[in-house]
Amino acid sequence: MSLKLLSQKVAQAIDEELMSTAGGFSVDQLMELAGLSVAQAVQKCFDKTQFPNVLVCVGPGNNGGDGLVAARHLFHFGYKPSLYYPKQPNKDLYQRLLRQCQNLDLPIHQEFPGEQTTDVFIDSIFGFSFHGEVRDPFKEVIQTFEHTKKPIVAVDIPSGWDVEQGPTEHVKYQPDILVSLTAPKLCAQHFKGRHLLGGRFVPPRLAKQFDFQVPSYPGSEQIVDISTSSSL
Amino acid sequence: MSLKLLSQKVAQAIDEELMSTAGGFSVDQLMELAGLSVAQAVQKCFDKTQFPNVLVCVGPGNNGGDGLVAARHLFHFGYKPSLYYPKQPNKDLYQRLLRQCQNLDLPIHQEFPGEQTTDVFIDSIFGFSFHGEVRDPFKEVIQTFEHTKKPIVAVDIPSGWDVEQGPTEHVKYQPDILVSLTAPKLCAQHFKGRHLLGGRFVPPRLAKQFDFQVPSYPGSEQIVDISTSSSL
Repeated sequence: MSLKLLSQKVAQAIDEELMSTAGGFSVDQLMELAGLSVAQAVQKCFDKTQFPNVLVCVGPGNNGGDGLVAARHLFHFGYKPSLYYPKQPNKDLYQRLLRQCQNLDLPIHQEFPGEQTTDVFIDSIFGFSFHGEVRDPFKEVIQTFEHTKKPIVAVDIPSGWDVEQGPTEHVKYQPDILVSLTAPKLCAQHFKGRHLLGGRFVPPRLAKQFDFQVPSYPGSEQIVDISTSSSL
Repeated sequence: MSLKLLSQKVAQAIDEELMSTAGGFSVDQLMELAGLSVAQAVQKCFDKTQFPNVLVCVGPGNNGGDGLVAARHLFHFGYKPSLYYPKQPNKDLYQRLLRQCQNLDLPIHQEFPGEQTTDVFIDSIFGFSFHGEVRDPFKEVIQTFEHTKKPIVAVDIPSGWDVEQGPTEHVKYQPDILVSLTAPKLCAQHFKGRHLLGGRFVPPRLAKQFDFQVPSYPGSEQIVDISTSSSL
């Protein structure tokens, strides 16, 4: 099976539909399930005894929110997550998600700590709504992603990539793991690592309406490996 | 390890603390994780090829909300859940959770269908705030629970039990599976079946503050079997 890859416009329309009055989901619910699937992806790919330290790089929007949720679940899974969250918007949802992490005493770095102290990076900086050029303070983070040998797990899309075209003149980094949410975006065809899908909440009717496939998830897991089924 | 059992008052205080400004959780988040843990419990205990039909009996409060979330996840796990939801409060959260089930075309029974058409019951009628006597339309459901040979999964406490004293003069039914949420309540000492715990979101500081234990959950699962550690 070859999974359909979504354009930016369709990805946005699906999100809006899920959270519409007709769809019924709250952003809290969807973010909880998205973040849980990211944490499960880390747990599946990186043993916590060998890779205990997970640095979650958190952007200012919903992609960052997914990262905050993932950090919390990783703590409960027995990892030692820490946060780099340099742009904290004054929005109740993000502040609550941050507080949940603070209540677990997760370290929050004031400066980007680089690659020395981490075993795995989570890239939850920008999602499918991003366009344009990456600016500081995130530029430094993505420059580290370009050369580090530490594994990187990207949430939904690798930050700085064009959601449809993939790597750009400025950002060419390849994450090791990509956790696509709901369905992979067009840029995923340029991704060369292990590809997982999360977001086990898509009503079959919605998938039909937007003409995309939902693969079969195993057991009660919130992620499914689509490495062999997501190439065009 | 013998887990501490919570009084009604302490259980309420823990819930309030989690959802306070300091705790930072929304009811949407906690309900999503609670319902997911109930669905995982069903998936762990009842094979979907042998027990596909799950009748979720939904009460008017938060316990019912957990059931609605569980029904949705069970659908995605490959079960055939249906709902009996005779008292539907005019509250946005419950209406949205119901709509999410309707969008999956889950059957919603207008009358209680009894035990003939189901393989497993979920009892998500009343939670730890319940007191008093069970009235219609739920009386009929619990009378069925008293005599049915079909397995029953109870959410947090068996409906109609006294949260501290356990079975009452009127309700003596024993569920097969009890999914305690956050921590078992005092009535759990009267429960004779398989005991699971869900709610993998308790900050260690909170557990310390209220002096209860959080057992070690396996892998990335949202439930842990406490059958051997929950007796007094």
